[in-house]
Order: sequence, then structure tokens, then C-alpha cells
Amino acid sequence: MTEARIEVTPIGVVESALTDPAAAPKQGHEGGPDAWLVFDPGVADGLSDVGPGDRIIVLTWLDRAGRDVLRVHPRDDPANPLRGVFSTRSADRPNPIGLHPVEVLAVDGLRIQVSGLEAVDGTPIVDVKPVLV
Amino acid sequence: MTEARIEVTPIGVVESALTDPAAAPKQGHEGGPDAWLVFDPGVADGLSDVGPGDRIIVLTWLDRAGRDVLRVHPRDDPANPLRGVFSTRSADRPNPIGLHPVEVLAVDGLRIQVSGLEAVDGTPIVDVKPVLV
Repeated sequence: MTEARIEVTPIGVVESALTDPAAAPKQGHEGGPDAWLVFDPGVADGLSDVGPGDRIIVLTWLDRAGRDVLRVHPRDDPANPLRGVFSTRSADRPNPIGLHPVEVLAVDGLRIQVSGLEAVDGTPIVDVKPVLV
Repeated sequence: MTEARIEVTPIGVVESALTDPAAAPKQGHEGGPDAWLVFDPGVADGLSDVGPGDRIIVLTWLDRAGRDVLRVHPRDDPANPLRGVFSTRSADRPNPIGLHPVEVLAVDGLRIQVSGLEAVDGTPIVDVKPVLV
């Protein structure tokens, strides 16, 4: 029933001072830096209503993750018992889609600056959604 | 910079009484029915710690969505001005990944029952994450 494969096309890329995944915080609220989202011209019309102060969820493809991993020691700490990845926010998982709630700081054409993003430089962006309150 | 395509492999499928996308609620909190998530045997180890009462985010691939849509009338109401899709939760968008916060009601092997899921029957599941509090 789940034989089909799905093709996702990146819509942009993260531009960040974070370059080492091992040094990246586990979650943005633990201290990710401000970063830029750099979008492809082809999706410009979809960005027309994104503005400073917006709270958005950035969906990324964590392309450095291990896709064959189903159990992990949470927070990469061997003292933590192994746990199924679907009960963790580990980047390692069959489809490593990252969810990053951030706030928009600035918009400059196809470049959007956001606060506290833990994704490393070069991470593909696959979607952006508003946070629903 | 975003030339690469990404291949996502479904890990399961939604089993629901909802079959008509046009009749589906726009968001689960508007009255999606209880539904079952039916997982592939290959990801069983990743599910080992999911249990009743857990609050999870189900990520789906909204395979009936229009991927060439960049602006929509919010809530499919022509009276609403056109808006960039990245400022809406429209299913229509370049990469139609659905985010569904739900609560686990029951676990039966590879089948997990959840509350209030607005995805229609047959929707591919691509990831499951715990809600972080």
C-alpha cells in the first residue's frame, strides 16, 4: 500500500553561520542563531504575504541524517535508553523532515531572516507554513 | 542551489471514514474524525515507544493537492483576497506536506488510532514526531 515514492523539490536553502551538525542545538529554543532563508525565484508568489513578526514553521530536509535509523539514544546520550525515533525529535529517521518554529525578522526579496533556527548552512527548505494560534 | 530532488518513502497510510477531500475539515480541531494510522512493518522498531495519551504530529503527503499553486483564496472562499500559500495552511503548495497534531487513542501492533485527523483515507504518512511541550 505504501510502495509509491514521493518526489519533493526544494524551494530554497538555509544560509546560516551553523555549519557543523554535531555542534547544532537539538532544538531552536535551545539557542539556534538567526539565519536567512533563501528562496528560489520560482516560488516568489507564494511568499508575498510573509512579513516581519510572522511566526512560521519552516520545514526542511535534514540531508545529513541517517535514514536507516529506527531507534536512538535520545539527545545522543548513551546513558539514555534506546527509544523509537517516532517518539523523539532525532534528525535520524526514515524521512528526515525538520520542523522549525521561528519568527520572521526581516524580508528582503527572496531572502527572509528568521530567529533561532537550528538547521545548518545549506539545509534544503521544502515548505513554510504559518503557525496557527 | 536547490536543483536536487529528494525522495520520500511513505512509512504508512491513513485509514479514515473521510474519503472526499472537499468535505474534509480545513484543520483537525474543526472536527476531523478519529482515524487509524497503518504503518509498514519495516518501521515497527521506530514505533516502539508510542502509546495511548501521547500527543504527536503526523506528517502526511497530501497527494491530492495541486503542486503548481502559489496563491490561494484562503479557505477556498473567493471573497477572501488571494494570499501567498506560504502564509496559509492550504493543502495546495509546491510540497504538500500536511502537519496534523493529534492524540494517540490506542495502539494495536502496526495500527495506531488517533483523534481528530482531517486527512482523507489513503493519505500517505511520511513521519511522526512527538509534540514538544
